[in-house]
Amino acid sequence: MTERERVEASTGWGVLHLFYWAPARPDDEPGGAKRVLDALATFTSEEPHQVVTFATLGHKADLGIMAVGPDLARLQALQHDLSATPLRPAWSYLSLTETSEYAMTEDDERRRLADEEQITDAATVEERLTAWRERITHYREQRVHPRLPQKRSICFYPMSKRRTGDDNWYALDFDARKQLMAGHARVGRTYAGRVVQLITGSTGLDDWEWGVTLFADDPGALKEIVYEMRFDEVSARYAEFGPFLTGLVLDPAEALRRVGLES
Amino acid sequence: MTERERVEASTGWGVLHLFYWAPARPDDEPGGAKRVLDALATFTSEEPHQVVTFATLGHKADLGIMAVGPDLARLQALQHDLSATPLRPAWSYLSLTETSEYAMTEDDERRRLADEEQITDAATVEERLTAWRERITHYREQRVHPRLPQKRSICFYPMSKRRTGDDNWYALDFDARKQLMAGHARVGRTYAGRVVQLITGSTGLDDWEWGVTLFADDPGALKEIVYEMRFDEVSARYAEFGPFLTGLVLDPAEALRRVGLES
Amino acid sequence: MTERERVEASTGWGVLHLFYWAPARPDDEPGGAKRVLDALATFTSEEPHQVVTFATLGHKADLGIMAVGPDLARLQALQHDLSATPLRPAWSYLSLTETSEYAMTEDDERRRLADEEQITDAATVEERLTAWRERITHYREQRVHPRLPQKRSICFYPMSKRRTGDDNWYALDFDARKQLMAGHARVGRTYAGRVVQLITGSTGLDDWEWGVTLFADDPGALKEIVYEMRFDEVSARYAEFGPFLTGLVLDPAEALRRVGLES
Amino acid sequence: MTERERVEASTGWGVLHLFYWAPARPDDEPGGAKRVLDALATFTSEEPHQVVTFATLGHKADLGIMAVGPDLARLQALQHDLSATPLRPAWSYLSLTETSEYAMTEDDERRRLADEEQITDAATVEERLTAWRERITHYREQRVHPRLPQKRSICFYPMSKRRTGDDNWYALDFDARKQLMAGHARVGRTYAGRVVQLITGSTGLDDWEWGVTLFADDPGALKEIVYEMRFDEVSARYAEFGPFLTGLVLDPAEALRRVGLES
Amino acid sequence: MTERERVEASTGWGVLHLFYWAPARPDDEPGGAKRVLDALATFTSEEPHQVVTFATLGHKADLGIMAVGPDLARLQALQHDLSATPLRPAWSYLSLTETSEYAMTEDDERRRLADEEQITDAATVEERLTAWRERITHYREQRVHPRLPQKRSICFYPMSKRRTGDDNWYALDFDARKQLMAGHARVGRTYAGRVVQLITGSTGLDDWEWGVTLFADDPGALKEIVYEMRFDEVSARYAEFGPFLTGLVLDPAEALRRVGLES
Repeated sequence: MTERERVEASTGWGVLHLFYWAPARPDDEPGGAKRVLDALATFTSEEPHQVVTFATLGHKADLGIMAVGPDLARLQALQHDLSATPLRPAWSYLSLTETSEYAMTEDDERRRLADEEQITDAATVEERLTAWRERITHYREQRVHPRLPQKRSICFYPMSKRRTGDDNWYALDFDARKQLMAGHARVGRTYAGRVVQLITGSTGLDDWEWGVTLFADDPGALKEIVYEMRFDEVSARYAEFGPFLTGLVLDPAEALRRVGLES
Repeated sequence: MTERERVEASTGWGVLHLFYWAPARPDDEPGGAKRVLDALATFTSEEPHQVVTFATLGHKADLGIMAVGPDLARLQALQHDLSATPLRPAWSYLSLTETSEYAMTEDDERRRLADEEQITDAATVEERLTAWRERITHYREQRVHPRLPQKRSICFYPMSKRRTGDDNWYALDFDARKQLMAGHARVGRTYAGRVVQLITGSTGLDDWEWGVTLFADDPGALKEIVYEMRFDEVSARYAEFGPFLTGLVLDPAEALRRVGLES
Repeated sequence: MTERERVEASTGWGVLHLFYWAPARPDDEPGGAKRVLDALATFTSEEPHQVVTFATLGHKADLGIMAVGPDLARLQALQHDLSATPLRPAWSYLSLTETSEYAMTEDDERRRLADEEQITDAATVEERLTAWRERITHYREQRVHPRLPQKRSICFYPMSKRRTGDDNWYALDFDARKQLMAGHARVGRTYAGRVVQLITGSTGLDDWEWGVTLFADDPGALKEIVYEMRFDEVSARYAEFGPFLTGLVLDPAEALRRVGLES
Repeated sequence: MTERERVEASTGWGVLHLFYWAPARPDDEPGGAKRVLDALATFTSEEPHQVVTFATLGHKADLGIMAVGPDLARLQALQHDLSATPLRPAWSYLSLTETSEYAMTEDDERRRLADEEQITDAATVEERLTAWRERITHYREQRVHPRLPQKRSICFYPMSKRRTGDDNWYALDFDARKQLMAGHARVGRTYAGRVVQLITGSTGLDDWEWGVTLFADDPGALKEIVYEMRFDEVSARYAEFGPFLTGLVLDPAEALRRVGLES
Repeated sequence: MTERERVEASTGWGVLHLFYWAPARPDDEPGGAKRVLDALATFTSEEPHQVVTFATLGHKADLGIMAVGPDLARLQALQHDLSATPLRPAWSYLSLTETSEYAMTEDDERRRLADEEQITDAATVEERLTAWRERITHYREQRVHPRLPQKRSICFYPMSKRRTGDDNWYALDFDARKQLMAGHARVGRTYAGRVVQLITGSTGLDDWEWGVTLFADDPGALKEIVYEMRFDEVSARYAEFGPFLTGLVLDPAEALRRVGLES
């Protein structure tokens, strides 16, 4: 598989992370909450367009809206509809869902079965691979066509791979990158159940190469996974991070209420 | 050919990428759309001045206007005319069209014919070179005097070549740079039909050394080409990138309508 | 103990450092001081939620509020309540209290007793360890569930550990990091009584990896400790610092009065 | 000649590059153009104070004013007078005219005559040196007490010499720097007639070490000279560049008219 | 003497550099000049609190106020009083006066007398040391408890010592730093009479490690000293510089008049 083939197979839906400041005097603009809720309802009225809304902590924004769906024009329309509400734009990030080009292949799994589990009997191998294919198809589908999870807290940050001196990710060959990413993924998997992560691609579209969205019920888990991964070579040597925004996930009406917009 | 000769031969028209925020309450400024459309019409009323308009995604801008033409005073007049509309300036980039100094020469092509196609017969070589000259003339003309293409999505970003430590593009000799750029171009050509790119020069004029405008019907293709090229040594070791802005190309009236300015 | 175990055991309460500009004409918004005081009172009405208020020096802010407590939703509510006062957000920082993963263990202390104090007699060792356990429990409790101290001046700054070339903190193994941090802590302890420091974690939550809050009666001591520590290898080779904000700690009504908001 | 002597001999007039945004609705502030023209006329009413005015391209500014003269208080007064017009400050740069410390000396010229032209006969040498002295005196005078040229386009950018790792300009000895600058100047001289450059010094006064102002009738020449010089070791290894601003030189009333201020 | 002892002995008064923009239409806020002058008079009414006022050049500010005195609360009160005038905050810097930890000791001077002047006779040595002690006491007093000088121009910039790769100031031992600083000071002393400099410490208090204020009658001298020092290893290898602000020192009423505020 060439770099090209890996890349072409990978792209899915549009993702727009929108961050807003709420008005200091919401009463000056009555009906603001309704206009925001209407904009969100219009966007999500057609499957599979989805949003997650959250009240953010700190001065960078008051409200975050993560919008996902196949139609970029619909994402642009949401952005425009929100511009006509009392919310003022604070920040945003544009990306597209994508599968990882470093995903395990069937050959990888076959080799792992032989090496780690000493399974070489053709029938058993095939049985195991069938189960593996189902899991991987589901995982891949969730990355390209995600259902946004329900967790109580969220953080979002963009990142790029480093290209400086001896720490140049893009100068590594595919096998070296795949091996490094496998170690990275192993750390991620130990947070299964506690943290759901969605990596989306933005090279050529926005200022960093990927957007990372993490969901967890316990906000401490957001800190723990990012901190632990920082010791992984992929992060320690090769990652550059943009701004981090953290929030409390709430249904849209409640999120608006918490930033002063009553419906 | 000296560096000077290469440079002098290369410069063409002015290019102004203008990005604007639309007003939150367009009704407060009636007639806004008309004033924008009039400004664009005035600019394009004289051949070969052209514009591409697009609705941008994310907080960096609502509307993008790429204006191209031989007359810098006309570009300044467009910028001024737009300042008298409800649009507020968000960002911009100034560059000039130029041919690549690393373009293949007739000698390069002759050598390639001999090496790759074993064509050395004088008559056949000449026949092939005639066709090659036509293609190259057309390609060169399109870079210096471009006709902006019709594609559904666009991204723009400025970039510079790196000058740090061992990764100093400007310390490489011409042949090394030409060879690196040839590899880079090979990747680009594999996107022919899917992605149209226009590289314009801005050294001495704006904050980066080049502006890159990519057009594609599929927005995923914008991500794919930039991502794949990042593994190319020209990008991996030598490129520094500015902000990326992405939008949906629309005719001017429709682009304005999508950002709230009805005409 | 794995990196994971160290990390999981460490996280405590939410910490929000909020910085505001006071209005230039407070009389235009009567009742402003009362609204701020009410917001603070609401936040601290439930134990153990606490605030420290301070008048800041310089243009970056007029007023600082450090808010600490177990409930992130309550911190968000404070932020929102303050948005409805005449104060305008200037900056903020989000973090969580945490214990240091490099804290001395019982084995470390046992070894120290043997090496430095030549105490190896089992009964004496046990007696000393009992006292040590009490101290360490108290110290650990103060980091995870802090009581904010009463000192006359304060400074706050975020920081990260460096990951560049040969100076990559995250590429060091745990023992090397622990040894470096022990030297760093030794310098800190020599300021006991003069400077109280609270290190809180923000990896994955805000733009730097830690927040550092220093309290001292003598503002000169804030400069002295940070300056002296800069010669320590942990800072000299591995620290990157964000903005520094310095203020005079005052009770809330007095802090507001000093920035023009009379109650 | 010591570094000190070179430095002391070099400083001349004050130079203030002022950049402004024009008002979106000039009619709200009638008489604006007159107030700007009056401010410029007051400044230039006393010889040798001069201005060049230009309409800038892009969002960084609408109007540029380069003001030069011996009296810094007069430059401050111009800045203040302009603050009372509808123009809003966008950017600025402060520098002083200076001669180059790397200028050729009489000994350099004598050596060049012997080496390059084989002229060693005392009378001829003296005759040639007399002519050389006149030229150099004129050139030096133009750098310290410049007459601003009349060209149709202008670009301005500040720059510093790099001080990082092995690329530390200030760690080179004088002879090495002089030799590097001589090569740089040779490239510059090949643009004689097409591009006029004025290098002014700002170390200790503004955020970069020098300001570079280029004048050319053909805006393409501005790009060509800066691009070609980037391959020179002085730029490739040792230059750091600030923002670039480009404009169309016009007489003051016309420049104002082009940004919407009619007089 | 330990690093600690050096540090503790060194800290003196608070220093607040405040930079403001003047109102574009001062007549809209009558009495503005009086309110500024009253704020300055209140601050300086108690010895030894002092201010220097200056009209700044360029867009970064219109007016600069350097305020010095032992009481940080009084500095905060000045900042607050000025917030109630028509001046709008543009920038600021907070630092504390301090002696240099690299000051010559009596032993250094004794050694210098023997080595450079061949003075070893006990009585003469003692006589010379008595004079030296007086000078050094005066110099030290002026750094910790400065009387701000009367010179016609001023520049201010913050700076830090570099901590990157092989250029890590804080990894040098004390003797190496002292020797480097001695060379730096030698250059400074050659400007005695022309330039007065005041170095104040801000590690832990503001974003850089030191503030540098230079006073000179001739603005050219500000450029000359900073430029010449840049070749010194302390600057060339180890200095990082923040923004530079330059102004014309005037008495408060005249400074205000020059920025449009008549009293």
